[in-house]
Amino acid sequence: MVGGHELDNIFYPKSVAVLGVSDSRQRVGYNLFESLLQGGFPGSLYPVHPRLETVLGRRVYHSLAEIPEKVDLALLALNERATLAALEECGEKGVKGAVCVAGGYREVGEAGAALEEELRAIARRYGIGLIGPNTLGLINNDADLYATFYPLRLPKGPVSFISQSGGMGLTFMHRAADAGLGLNKWVGVGNRSTFEFADYLAYFGQDPTTKVIGIFLEGTEGAARMVRVAAAIAKPVVVYKVGRGEVTDYASLTHTGTLAGSYRVYRDIFRQFGLYAVESVAQMVAALKALSLAPLPQGNRVGIMTHTAGPSIVAADELLSRGCSLPPLAAATLEAIERLTGPSPPFVLKNPLDVAGLGFAAEAYGQYLELVAQDPGVDLVLAIYCEHKNWRFPSRELVQAKERAGKPIVACYASRDEFLEEERKLLEHHGIPLFGTPEEAAWGAAALVAWAERLRRKAK
Amino acid sequence: MVGGHELDNIFYPKSVAVLGVSDSRQRVGYNLFESLLQGGFPGSLYPVHPRLETVLGRRVYHSLAEIPEKVDLALLALNERATLAALEECGEKGVKGAVCVAGGYREVGEAGAALEEELRAIARRYGIGLIGPNTLGLINNDADLYATFYPLRLPKGPVSFISQSGGMGLTFMHRAADAGLGLNKWVGVGNRSTFEFADYLAYFGQDPTTKVIGIFLEGTEGAARMVRVAAAIAKPVVVYKVGRGEVTDYASLTHTGTLAGSYRVYRDIFRQFGLYAVESVAQMVAALKALSLAPLPQGNRVGIMTHTAGPSIVAADELLSRGCSLPPLAAATLEAIERLTGPSPPFVLKNPLDVAGLGFAAEAYGQYLELVAQDPGVDLVLAIYCEHKNWRFPSRELVQAKERAGKPIVACYASRDEFLEEERKLLEHHGIPLFGTPEEAAWGAAALVAWAERLRRKAK
Repeated sequence: MVGGHELDNIFYPKSVAVLGVSDSRQRVGYNLFESLLQGGFPGSLYPVHPRLETVLGRRVYHSLAEIPEKVDLALLALNERATLAALEECGEKGVKGAVCVAGGYREVGEAGAALEEELRAIARRYGIGLIGPNTLGLINNDADLYATFYPLRLPKGPVSFISQSGGMGLTFMHRAADAGLGLNKWVGVGNRSTFEFADYLAYFGQDPTTKVIGIFLEGTEGAARMVRVAAAIAKPVVVYKVGRGEVTDYASLTHTGTLAGSYRVYRDIFRQFGLYAVESVAQMVAALKALSLAPLPQGNRVGIMTHTAGPSIVAADELLSRGCSLPPLAAATLEAIERLTGPSPPFVLKNPLDVAGLGFAAEAYGQYLELVAQDPGVDLVLAIYCEHKNWRFPSRELVQAKERAGKPIVACYASRDEFLEEERKLLEHHGIPLFGTPEEAAWGAAALVAWAERLRRKAK
Repeated sequence: MVGGHELDNIFYPKSVAVLGVSDSRQRVGYNLFESLLQGGFPGSLYPVHPRLETVLGRRVYHSLAEIPEKVDLALLALNERATLAALEECGEKGVKGAVCVAGGYREVGEAGAALEEELRAIARRYGIGLIGPNTLGLINNDADLYATFYPLRLPKGPVSFISQSGGMGLTFMHRAADAGLGLNKWVGVGNRSTFEFADYLAYFGQDPTTKVIGIFLEGTEGAARMVRVAAAIAKPVVVYKVGRGEVTDYASLTHTGTLAGSYRVYRDIFRQFGLYAVESVAQMVAALKALSLAPLPQGNRVGIMTHTAGPSIVAADELLSRGCSLPPLAAATLEAIERLTGPSPPFVLKNPLDVAGLGFAAEAYGQYLELVAQDPGVDLVLAIYCEHKNWRFPSRELVQAKERAGKPIVACYASRDEFLEEERKLLEHHGIPLFGTPEEAAWGAAALVAWAERLRRKAK
């Protein structure tokens, strides 16, 4: 919670009303209310409908005026016209925050745009902060607030996400949860009648429970302010911008009424202002996971430790094309390796260090790993291990090497997902993000390097 | 099985010997033997060691000569020097196939290269086909043959994989299994003393149980023959080529003794010869899954059906950059859509067709989907749906639309993996590959389009 911020009232309400609640499982009004209940929201909940008596076992109020208490947040589950009248009612009741899920505004053409202008005028007149319209809603996992018509429950964590698309926001949530990445806050910006990307960014930037921020972006007229705000906050911002051609630009226009704009221009601006650009959901998840878990490297020099060459080459490709370097290991490190193996070891002394068969045993793996991690020319270690049923994963050794060297380690284990769960929990508890492919591990490592570099440049 | 082919003897042996078996769980010889047992190989198994009596409850033979039967395949779990003597023994016994797991040959320098030359000379003298050296081995899931020192068990299926890296081959196997993609044959080519990529390609090309082929490639001097063979076989070949820069080139050299070569040259050659190039494990899995499951489209025109815009924009980006087009829907299709919705529907009539809230109900989703699929300008449909606990997935409708329209459908459901399992089985049983992100669905669709286009050009 950020004391006194306009969005606090919306993300941390004490009381929530659902206008247009329904008793049909297939209506948005039902789903919004069910979602709040299922999410375990601890504050007051007021379903509102002129004729219904109870929904999901709760008393229904027949109007907003009938509610005895102050209402902080109203969820409007009404069509695009009825939403206008309801927002007016909210204003009269003194409600200062509203979520408008209805579509049918500027994304459908001129008539819709006029309607949206009316909506915005009402909000302005009463000083109501509006999420949407044309949105899935918002989630604040830190307050058990699931103000969205997609009833679900997600693991808690440090990541907050701003999405211009409900569907991509959901896709991110599901993939993040499958990767063990917990969610803090989530908002579908919809048509951005009141709040722009920049507003959510500024709020999440101050929010003490948000550690890293992701954005799914189609396009915005508010891009200039967005990047300036992103550059000013002290948290990493990862952005997935779509709409690379004219066809997809048109699709964006008919989605939220915004021309997406040139992809290249966006990408260059992101770089300049220190937003980290990714090009897939998998890259987004990898970057946010690494940034939320691992400590930051002192530079861009990555040491790769492995017992199998191929994944280290894949990782190297991805790292080198993302601003990381793979320095040679120091002479002292090579000597220390030779003290372990004896002279002329059965592998080439280089970075990536591939110790081949000598790396199966976790204890041995740990010894080599520690030498790479302690190398004065290495800022971050990417550690690769392939599951073998007769050997254990070197997870304890990874944790030890990280702690002794005081450097970030990003891990890649080749294995089935089901076998990784326990290792993932152990490693990630100790600040070592674990991935199932070398590409993902490299994406995570590169995001850490980029953010650390950004901080150093800012500090100058 | 391919009658009379030299590699048949290796992939479909009647009897297998393990030279250098061990009773220690941490030795390669033990793991190779355990792997064969665990894989359920139905033929004769002969563990060989000069002094041991039993391993894993099986009688150990003290020499190859002692084995009463003809041996088709010998697995050599010995060091690089002992492997030479053992291969000589194999020759004398009349063994025609061998897997050499030892490293220490040309990948470690000149002395190793000389040793490898000796190994090759022995193989040539006796007419032995050699897998490796410096390899994880091979798997033939069609014959329950797990001739690798990584004991595992994988779901059976139509994909065969040729890997220049054990670690990347394992990573692919794990990720493919997690994606529900079954394996047919797998080989780690190692240093390719006897068999080149082209040989495995030619063999898998004729193999009736292999439907699609994947390659993980660092680099090969045999690239010209490889692409010519790939161009000649009637199965799709998907290739993941790594080593994009000088540093990774060096890593490849020290891995299997091969300079990787310019990535761009490879990519252009792949295009010319009809190999489908991918740039990550995830893209490899998506392409092979689509190619192994779905029927082929008649052209490159993709219709996207969705109830949420964002994922359709992401899919469009990926499709358009991979040779697919997104044609406008036909006038008759638009009229049919309006007959369903009434005039001026609450969404824009275009491709991607985003029916928004009208698409939650599976029955309604199915009606729109069918109109897109039946559109004469659409060759393939990419169908997107976001999980909502109060609605069911439109899986039955997808199957029906595919069968009625006689066109391929590729599906993307936004959901947690655990909820997708059942839908995945149903859809994939009916030839509809299911993915968890729009990028993966688009990669799968684009691979289908590319392969169909390749076949049409060949037929001309």
